[in-house]
Amino acid sequence: MRTFSLILFAFFALAMQSAKPTRIIFFGDSITQAGVGAGGYITRLKDRLAKENKAADYELIGAGIGGNKVYDLYLRVEEDVIAKKPDVTVIYIGVNDVWHKSSYGTGTDPDKFVKFYDALIRKIQASGSKIVLVTPAAIGERPDNSNQQDGDLNQYSRFIRELAAKYSLPLVDLRKTFMDYNLKNNAQNAEKGILTTDRVHLNETGNQMVADEMYRVIIKS
Amino acid sequence: MRTFSLILFAFFALAMQSAKPTRIIFFGDSITQAGVGAGGYITRLKDRLAKENKAADYELIGAGIGGNKVYDLYLRVEEDVIAKKPDVTVIYIGVNDVWHKSSYGTGTDPDKFVKFYDALIRKIQASGSKIVLVTPAAIGERPDNSNQQDGDLNQYSRFIRELAAKYSLPLVDLRKTFMDYNLKNNAQNAEKGILTTDRVHLNETGNQMVADEMYRVIIKS
Amino acid sequence: MRTFSLILFAFFALAMQSAKPTRIIFFGDSITQAGVGAGGYITRLKDRLAKENKAADYELIGAGIGGNKVYDLYLRVEEDVIAKKPDVTVIYIGVNDVWHKSSYGTGTDPDKFVKFYDALIRKIQASGSKIVLVTPAAIGERPDNSNQQDGDLNQYSRFIRELAAKYSLPLVDLRKTFMDYNLKNNAQNAEKGILTTDRVHLNETGNQMVADEMYRVIIKS
Amino acid sequence: MRTFSLILFAFFALAMQSAKPTRIIFFGDSITQAGVGAGGYITRLKDRLAKENKAADYELIGAGIGGNKVYDLYLRVEEDVIAKKPDVTVIYIGVNDVWHKSSYGTGTDPDKFVKFYDALIRKIQASGSKIVLVTPAAIGERPDNSNQQDGDLNQYSRFIRELAAKYSLPLVDLRKTFMDYNLKNNAQNAEKGILTTDRVHLNETGNQMVADEMYRVIIKS
Repeated sequence: MRTFSLILFAFFALAMQSAKPTRIIFFGDSITQAGVGAGGYITRLKDRLAKENKAADYELIGAGIGGNKVYDLYLRVEEDVIAKKPDVTVIYIGVNDVWHKSSYGTGTDPDKFVKFYDALIRKIQASGSKIVLVTPAAIGERPDNSNQQDGDLNQYSRFIRELAAKYSLPLVDLRKTFMDYNLKNNAQNAEKGILTTDRVHLNETGNQMVADEMYRVIIKS
Repeated sequence: MRTFSLILFAFFALAMQSAKPTRIIFFGDSITQAGVGAGGYITRLKDRLAKENKAADYELIGAGIGGNKVYDLYLRVEEDVIAKKPDVTVIYIGVNDVWHKSSYGTGTDPDKFVKFYDALIRKIQASGSKIVLVTPAAIGERPDNSNQQDGDLNQYSRFIRELAAKYSLPLVDLRKTFMDYNLKNNAQNAEKGILTTDRVHLNETGNQMVADEMYRVIIKS
Repeated sequence: MRTFSLILFAFFALAMQSAKPTRIIFFGDSITQAGVGAGGYITRLKDRLAKENKAADYELIGAGIGGNKVYDLYLRVEEDVIAKKPDVTVIYIGVNDVWHKSSYGTGTDPDKFVKFYDALIRKIQASGSKIVLVTPAAIGERPDNSNQQDGDLNQYSRFIRELAAKYSLPLVDLRKTFMDYNLKNNAQNAEKGILTTDRVHLNETGNQMVADEMYRVIIKS
Repeated sequence: MRTFSLILFAFFALAMQSAKPTRIIFFGDSITQAGVGAGGYITRLKDRLAKENKAADYELIGAGIGGNKVYDLYLRVEEDVIAKKPDVTVIYIGVNDVWHKSSYGTGTDPDKFVKFYDALIRKIQASGSKIVLVTPAAIGERPDNSNQQDGDLNQYSRFIRELAAKYSLPLVDLRKTFMDYNLKNNAQNAEKGILTTDRVHLNETGNQMVADEMYRVIIKS
């Protein structure tokens, strides 16, 4: 009887261990901060996992702070990511590095963007977490390449693609996804309202699209 | 005898009138300022006209000043253009309206760009000169749309195309010409050296291309 | 009888002429736009004139539009000022010429600020209106000269003082008035809340101070 | 004899150890990069120490790189400072954090400036080096507070003074020294030529003044 109890205990202990959910931290800016709210992309990911009875397999944590640039992530990575021992860290940054150039005069130089991003990857990798990279989706949705920051967003997205290649990391290429969608669905060349509410932050369709892309790259793989 | 004199006078008057060259003023920024120098696009236009024995038919005047934006043209249009009674005025502006946003914080708002450009067109038209519009060619030559100012240059070029349509004016669409050329001849995605020396100012190939486009639109038509 | 009628007519004509109020247009940005609202500086000026039984002597017109810079005033001076035939035009501009450098990258170059301001003065003078100049009060109220735009605001205010001297125009030197007041009443080095609500726009004390300064320079003189 | 030799050797060894010079690293931007050149402030410090027969007591190392901001120092502090085990590190930074706001749109936010500066101090202190702080001298020398960046330079200098107080560190307050000098010696309100060649970089008088201030705070104390 006693032996059986022990075996049963061992079985459940194993089961519980195997049930330990994969902890995923979404590390980013205001888009990710809104991601955990009602209708946000992280909330939608959770909803989908629940529907598929995978809710217990994943713990999704939002770590987004409005206005953050790559070096803000660097300054708080120890506290907000590494201390929480995630299995996967999703780095979703870049909009403010470009945008703040014209709105505050405090954007991030291209070479510094790469340096801090690279240092961030190495710090998180050293902590044992897997990493997923994400390109910044949009500052303005006009598909004719006439949004003020299009050139810079394309450049910084290229840097992120190059970093993903350098470190062989999975990539959620939202810049490409959003552009492709707008080319098909924004014939009127509108600068917002297709996937964003205000040129930058996600509307319902945008949040669902980001959730789906995250699912495709992070959960499925 | 008297009758003969009159006939002779009429003949010469007619000859002189027919010999009066078409006066073309190129109104712009540093690119046009360099255009009258050795190898510059205006110099190349003159050379071509000379070769074709049309030198006497055209008087080409450079009125470019480094750093000029659309409202600088507006402030000096009376003195530098209208007072000189040109037959044709070529407006070639826009690079600094975009570029100075990040280099001095003093670029031109999109709506003000259009307002001043529109006012400029109306002033010059009222003076009797024909007008040709030109889109700004490049700030950076990477054909993958990742030059920092690409979005804005595309936007301001679109404004100029819309103004050309609104006033039914001939257009030298250098933005398109340069992009097309780089798509074919800049596989390495270089940011300068294809048509420019420094991302903005024209090298030999660039000056020749601008001269050819100007010829095609202004002289031939 | 006829003679009497003529005398009566002459009397009324004279009375009407003497009753024609002095028309003053306040030409500016969002601060002047708010000036005609409840508690605004123009409203306070009207209230004071009413109390002093001078309401019939003056017609105060607000012509402020949010975000305006000196060249916006230039673009709309015909319609919004000259067409209304004011006796006095108060030019109150400069905050956005400085501020938009960092918030949009579209501030006004120092030399262009002077050129457009000068052209504006000459246009309004040519129309027969008297002119009063005003320096921009503040972008941040810290009296230790550590507000980001202090240097530039001091520079552009100096330009306005020089223009007032050049054209012998009355000057409402709000930059100096605000600095003097903050030096005495802002020992805690606060960046707002003394004369402004948000570093730029006037609170009650600020609106009253501007009204008093306008009265002192425009009405009394 | 042998004993004597050993004693003599021990004496010299001790003498040499006591002669081990104090290693001072000057950690900064282009001003410090030029500081080690002919007539530069570090060169002048060396010259003065040589004249006073103290050359052997100090090893002065320049670690300045043009264009550096506080986070550039942070990114290279391990390699360029800590690895060289200095006794004293002089942090002389801030001009580009302010200047690049308008010249590239990539200046440093006020709160990030403090965060990175603070992190830099803690890293260097943890390595065992003493630290001396320096405020940025000038971007423009007009003593009437009308240089474009005066407000911001005053703000960032205040931050540095507050950090010096927080960590009880010696301070070379060049911002104050330069302003005091210009108030006495720049009656014509010139923007350069008093202590700088170009509003920022030091002329002979400026280099000597910085050398003297460094000497007063670092060497004497």
